Amino acid sequence: MKQFINTKETLITEAIDGLLRTANGKLARLDGYPHIKVVVRTDWDKSKVALVSGGGSGHEPSHAGFVGQGMLTAAVCGDVFASPSVDAVLAGILAVTGKAGCLLIVKNYTGDRLNFGLAAERARALGLQVRMVVVDDDVALPDLPQARGVAGTLFVHKSAGALADEGADLYTVAEAAEKVINGVVSIGMSLDTCTVPGSPKEERIELGKAELGLGIHGEAGIEQVDYSGARDAMHMVVEKLAPNIGPGPHVALLNNLGGAMPLEMSVLAEELVRSPIGDQISFMVGPAPLMTSLDMQGFSVSLLPVTDDNRHALATSVAPWAWPGCIEVADVPVAPLPDGLTPIQPTPSANEETAAFLKRCCTILIEAEADLNTLDAKSGDGDTGSTLATASRALIDALDRLPLADTTQLYRAIGQELSQTMGGSSGVLLAIFFAAAGDASANGANTVGALKAGLDRVRQVGGAELGDRTMVDALHPALEALPHGLAAAAQAARQGAEATANITKAKAGRATYVSEDKLAGHVDPGAEAVARLLEQISAS
Amino acid sequence: MKQFINTKETLITEAIDGLLRTANGKLARLDGYPHIKVVVRTDWDKSKVALVSGGGSGHEPSHAGFVGQGMLTAAVCGDVFASPSVDAVLAGILAVTGKAGCLLIVKNYTGDRLNFGLAAERARALGLQVRMVVVDDDVALPDLPQARGVAGTLFVHKSAGALADEGADLYTVAEAAEKVINGVVSIGMSLDTCTVPGSPKEERIELGKAELGLGIHGEAGIEQVDYSGARDAMHMVVEKLAPNIGPGPHVALLNNLGGAMPLEMSVLAEELVRSPIGDQISFMVGPAPLMTSLDMQGFSVSLLPVTDDNRHALATSVAPWAWPGCIEVADVPVAPLPDGLTPIQPTPSANEETAAFLKRCCTILIEAEADLNTLDAKSGDGDTGSTLATASRALIDALDRLPLADTTQLYRAIGQELSQTMGGSSGVLLAIFFAAAGDASANGANTVGALKAGLDRVRQVGGAELGDRTMVDALHPALEALPHGLAAAAQAARQGAEATANITKAKAGRATYVSEDKLAGHVDPGAEAVARLLEQISAS
Repeated sequence: MKQFINTKETLITEAIDGLLRTANGKLARLDGYPHIKVVVRTDWDKSKVALVSGGGSGHEPSHAGFVGQGMLTAAVCGDVFASPSVDAVLAGILAVTGKAGCLLIVKNYTGDRLNFGLAAERARALGLQVRMVVVDDDVALPDLPQARGVAGTLFVHKSAGALADEGADLYTVAEAAEKVINGVVSIGMSLDTCTVPGSPKEERIELGKAELGLGIHGEAGIEQVDYSGARDAMHMVVEKLAPNIGPGPHVALLNNLGGAMPLEMSVLAEELVRSPIGDQISFMVGPAPLMTSLDMQGFSVSLLPVTDDNRHALATSVAPWAWPGCIEVADVPVAPLPDGLTPIQPTPSANEETAAFLKRCCTILIEAEADLNTLDAKSGDGDTGSTLATASRALIDALDRLPLADTTQLYRAIGQELSQTMGGSSGVLLAIFFAAAGDASANGANTVGALKAGLDRVRQVGGAELGDRTMVDALHPALEALPHGLAAAAQAARQGAEATANITKAKAGRATYVSEDKLAGHVDPGAEAVARLLEQISAS
Repeated sequence: MKQFINTKETLITEAIDGLLRTANGKLARLDGYPHIKVVVRTDWDKSKVALVSGGGSGHEPSHAGFVGQGMLTAAVCGDVFASPSVDAVLAGILAVTGKAGCLLIVKNYTGDRLNFGLAAERARALGLQVRMVVVDDDVALPDLPQARGVAGTLFVHKSAGALADEGADLYTVAEAAEKVINGVVSIGMSLDTCTVPGSPKEERIELGKAELGLGIHGEAGIEQVDYSGARDAMHMVVEKLAPNIGPGPHVALLNNLGGAMPLEMSVLAEELVRSPIGDQISFMVGPAPLMTSLDMQGFSVSLLPVTDDNRHALATSVAPWAWPGCIEVADVPVAPLPDGLTPIQPTPSANEETAAFLKRCCTILIEAEADLNTLDAKSGDGDTGSTLATASRALIDALDRLPLADTTQLYRAIGQELSQTMGGSSGVLLAIFFAAAGDASANGANTVGALKAGLDRVRQVGGAELGDRTMVDALHPALEALPHGLAAAAQAARQGAEATANITKAKAGRATYVSEDKLAGHVDPGAEAVARLLEQISAS
């Protein structure tokens, strides 16, 4: 068993119960388990025409998922792909039908027609007004006199549901349903078969093939076709539908047969709109799973002409969450990119002392390249030294462009330079460090305050805490000590860096993936870089 | 390729466009394809705190599907499982952020933290108020300091979204988000890996195994466990969650990781409520696909303590359809079965003439058993004769119980008898025939009118028209001729029956599945039964 079920026998009753627990108290089931599996509205007073549908299970959210104000009044659920019994259908009818009568919406399968048909007779014998309509929207087999009922059935639920909800009489509701049935056409395509609970999966469709014109019960498609992508797939589907529709505007229902990903369905929606009949599609329902075939990785398209009559009925809002609404199809709205994406280049300014200081820092890091690489090779991929050296060289080259006379702008400019020249996480983290320091400086922080603000932000974004074996272990104590002078800061950094050699459980950064014994005794290269930088600056 | 996509490279932009076409004009994308893939609200005036989230794609409906009033203001989409760039995030922030500022909701992955983090700095440098929260709800690895962000992120979107929508300031919105992040715990389980577009599927999980504690990027679960059904699966998940939650009421988010069927998800919902922590689950979001991992056949459960603070924020309605609402978990509401399911037994009454007539009819059909079976063997499974004979014998046995003196009730009673004793479609159709005849009789129809009403209903329910090679081909002309006497009816029935031998294209019933050359020259057994019955009655 490769499905989240308990037993095949209890699948449907357990699933219905699960559904009802989260239905906000608006749905109940009749007390007829396991034989009678009927879901009914609890917010229903029988004053209007009742709509009853159903059939085999395995098509969820059809049918129980569409019970609620504005759609079905009751759903009669069979076992997977099996018609419910006459008794079950009759129970559904009797539970919800009052003087206004009841419309049965049946998909065109012999079992459903017969069982719903006989149940209707028995209800009539009890004095109820019952009408039955049979949906046969599938155009896969143009010559078949008994076309199957598939996802186009949803249009019937919605249109008849809206009218019934507004208080129309049974005749009006049934005639509207018949009109929809006469107008709607559907066809499906799939890349894989469905998995029937309790049965092994039939591997019928080879890679590179698709089935066109399939049903919703795992039956084979009318033809196997070559599959080469979403665009071609939609074209084949549209080719089957096009001869069956008139020239006017249509509403398209794009149905996920169960196993297609939302990404795939969105691509298919795009392809449908771009297809040769795209101009005729004014409204869309979905893409969404509406009438599935278990986990079938496929889709179906149903088309219904939009008329003044049905436009309103399709658009009204309903209680069942599973109905995604009937949305007017629009061009893709595109908004211009905002200003500010290109960083403003700071105005260069001169400050010899600052320039010399920066150059000194960069030189120290460039000279440390080999040592830091060696150290990094113990716990990483051995490129910390090179990464820092490359960035340092770039910074030296950029000195003339920097706003050296404006501390705040200088922090920001360094951050910007680093984000452009330094690859990997460390580049982003250092860019964040200097950008945040610049912000703090703009808000009046002194050097220590600005650098501390930078560190805080780096720790927040990078998720590194003290003791996590990162450069934070050197930088944090250094900044704490910095008010006492550079020498104190250097000493604190060195102590912090040395301590990382004893941290064998890295908690952030790449060293988390390195085994403990490999880390032991080696100083973290980032912390070493900080310590070495401060030591050499304070010594010079 | 076994997916409905065109190319891996265009997948996300095409999918976003497909989404936007059916978004009722309320969503737009920024003009930055292919690098910048940002979806923004069009009904947004920057007067409130903006919520920006995003990350790699492949988690649909997250993130673009949750952009809309009451939830996100913008979603920044990367390629499949890849973090969006700093520029893309910055574009999203700048497009929607006004004076009230912006909250970035980031899942705890290094790439997302860094890219969103640096984008935040760049936005701050432009004078915008930006705060960032990092969601780390996954409890799969209790010792991991950097827990992943998974479906619990939806609680952050919803809670922060409700506050922002109500006009709360950035501090308040961010603090509420942090509170949710501190409270929420999640874990996932899967029966199969996901299929990354453009890559072959990794077959990692054998039949009979499941992965517990998996991430949403196809990474392996923390452990492979034996899988024996939905109940055990949910118990294992609950066992991991239970140590991490307090005693109070919780809201559970039951997330479909993509490939689980609605039936499976409903069963899992039921199991979650029935589980050892079921009593602590007061509300549920889903089951629904909320934060998927492509087509992964799995689920995750996220738990958040319900407090006076978040109860309201979780419950408000929102624009994005993908949010299924936060529903109070209830016992399964069970309604009593309606009266009328057990057919009322008619009061027996005597009428010797009618009894004799019925017995004669039944005897004729019993005597025809072998002939009709032989005929049926040409086009079906050779049991028409036996089916009719069995029903006839049962009807003879039932004669004493029938209301022989009341025509209307007699029709109905015969229908009821047949529905109970005759198997298959033909039993149901004959039951419908007599029930409908009874209704017509009750409304004043004479014998011919009643029988015609019966035939009309049978044709409607069975879908058989004249010329479809069924018993209708004999019964219809017979009833048309019946006003001229039994002999005329018998002659018409015979003509109609004989004509079926030339109908080689059956359009209803089982003969539709039989090849034309096998049907040619053979009378339909149902039509033959009608003809023979009438011939012998009229002759006697």
